[in-house]
Amino acid sequence: MSWAFAYAGGMHEDPTVGELSEGEILRRILARTGRAGASLVGPGDDAAVVAAPSGSVVATTDTLIHGPDFRLAWSSGYDLGWKSAAVNLADVAAMGARPTALLVALAMPNDTRASFVEALADGLRDACEALAPGCAVVGGDLTASDVLTIAVTALGDLEGRAPVLRSGARAGDVVAIAGELGRAARGLQVLFTRFRDADGAPVPVDPALLRDGDTGVLEAQLRPAPPIGLGPFAARAGATAMMDVSDGLALDARRMADASAVTIAIDSADLGDDPRIALEGGEDHALLATFPAGALPPGFRPIGRVMPRDEASVHVDGVPYLGAGGWDPYRDWDAAAG
Amino acid sequence: MSWAFAYAGGMHEDPTVGELSEGEILRRILARTGRAGASLVGPGDDAAVVAAPSGSVVATTDTLIHGPDFRLAWSSGYDLGWKSAAVNLADVAAMGARPTALLVALAMPNDTRASFVEALADGLRDACEALAPGCAVVGGDLTASDVLTIAVTALGDLEGRAPVLRSGARAGDVVAIAGELGRAARGLQVLFTRFRDADGAPVPVDPALLRDGDTGVLEAQLRPAPPIGLGPFAARAGATAMMDVSDGLALDARRMADASAVTIAIDSADLGDDPRIALEGGEDHALLATFPAGALPPGFRPIGRVMPRDEASVHVDGVPYLGAGGWDPYRDWDAAAG
Repeated sequence: MSWAFAYAGGMHEDPTVGELSEGEILRRILARTGRAGASLVGPGDDAAVVAAPSGSVVATTDTLIHGPDFRLAWSSGYDLGWKSAAVNLADVAAMGARPTALLVALAMPNDTRASFVEALADGLRDACEALAPGCAVVGGDLTASDVLTIAVTALGDLEGRAPVLRSGARAGDVVAIAGELGRAARGLQVLFTRFRDADGAPVPVDPALLRDGDTGVLEAQLRPAPPIGLGPFAARAGATAMMDVSDGLALDARRMADASAVTIAIDSADLGDDPRIALEGGEDHALLATFPAGALPPGFRPIGRVMPRDEASVHVDGVPYLGAGGWDPYRDWDAAAG
Repeated sequence: MSWAFAYAGGMHEDPTVGELSEGEILRRILARTGRAGASLVGPGDDAAVVAAPSGSVVATTDTLIHGPDFRLAWSSGYDLGWKSAAVNLADVAAMGARPTALLVALAMPNDTRASFVEALADGLRDACEALAPGCAVVGGDLTASDVLTIAVTALGDLEGRAPVLRSGARAGDVVAIAGELGRAARGLQVLFTRFRDADGAPVPVDPALLRDGDTGVLEAQLRPAPPIGLGPFAARAGATAMMDVSDGLALDARRMADASAVTIAIDSADLGDDPRIALEGGEDHALLATFPAGALPPGFRPIGRVMPRDEASVHVDGVPYLGAGGWDPYRDWDAAAG
């Protein structure tokens, strides 16, 4: 629908983005996203300017795409704003940095409702406030697309510390986790097994069909709350290596082991009552870190130890772990399967 | 096509991204994108770490979407890599900053060829080398999507200077341009009027059908080369306001005039032989800047002057300019029109 038509016919109470100018959509977003403490020049100019007091900036980007990454039948605008912030904040935290700012590139079908965009902005703001106080949206981009796409870039400050890389794990270190393992994957299982129609298409969650524990795992899937503050805390406590567990513990531990040229030995007794989903399930964005023996800080629980490199990257209960381990969007996504 | 199938059947010489793992696609990209001078921790960890020696970082994001922003019949992978870098570098330069790093979020259909992705990486690298030496890709994200989407975030360093905002133009300043005006729009006109089939669908450019001058304006549209180095140069020379002209001179001058609470008076005699397309045509990413009278640096040409605010944001030849002025993706894009 063109702007001229909308003007002539009167505006719908909840207009679509196709009825609004780019500037008006932006105003509605910025009215909700707050202001970053580190923001020196906020949205509205060609670029944002963000304080980087330690003389370097941590930067990462992660995208949520309708289809492979979320379904609108299951995720609200608020959920998507929250999750797109949380997954990027986790990447900054995993370097040992404090998140300072988000940039949000939003590509939306023209029939997207303004209320949806506003809820998305609310979710971005609330995730920053709840998980990384002081961080907020400082800039972004709006485009039309047939596929709803949310590409977030997060910036962070190392506060004078060296970044904590994946490659710093040393034999003898303790392997530890802060945050959940496998709960987001269990939430996805609930959605895939119980909230699809006969053709496999997603249908909205009916609260009457939820069983004990479902609410918590759906929350973990739709609005993950990784322990962002524990990232810089772990860095101060002397973490030797750190990363966020986005694709499953087994796969991400393998990446850390390979980058560090060590073997990571995991004790499945430390992985809760369903070690397999803890090893294979992604999207919790827990922090996987290694610390010198005896130096485990509060907030982290031990799940194993670092050994000299042997023939396998990862052992579980003393045996090389050979599971596929984790999610690869190109390999795993079958559009036809819903 | 699944990974297992591709493995069993032997790999196509130019595999699709659906046949490759995320890690393999990333390796092919990173083998081509070079390394940023400011990069302290490059791709491969949770986040990049980029030097920000002045204690702040300039950050901007801009997305190219198949459909509203480009057509694959007209743009090669190389073109898209180049353009997605150039438009973001221009936003950094327009703050008076030196671009230091790019992050690239790439969402691709599974049938995208690896050679296309490699060409895109080449375009990203070459645009950085040609337009902003020292800047390179430091991180990114790969996702599957039915719509090819390239979301680039650019970072920059102010080298100790204050950012040059849109809001600093003062009555008496000279208004100046560095770079092209209207050429990218003329390139788009060539594509839309001469390289579409009877149904309006884009068809590849047939070199035999090109007329005098077409090659240059197509180059401006497909591989724009804004004068990135002149951004920080203008800042050092005392620019009072600056922005890049992405949506057309008339619209962007209006934005600058409104932000600065002044009126910008443009002399159409300074806009070349087609002032209307210079005023209305977007996508050249020229730098629009204001300087104190008598302080115009090399590389910038005067096109008018800043006046005290009157009833109009922009005058052309002494008359308030009332043209619509510029491109708004939501208002202007008609998917059905091709």
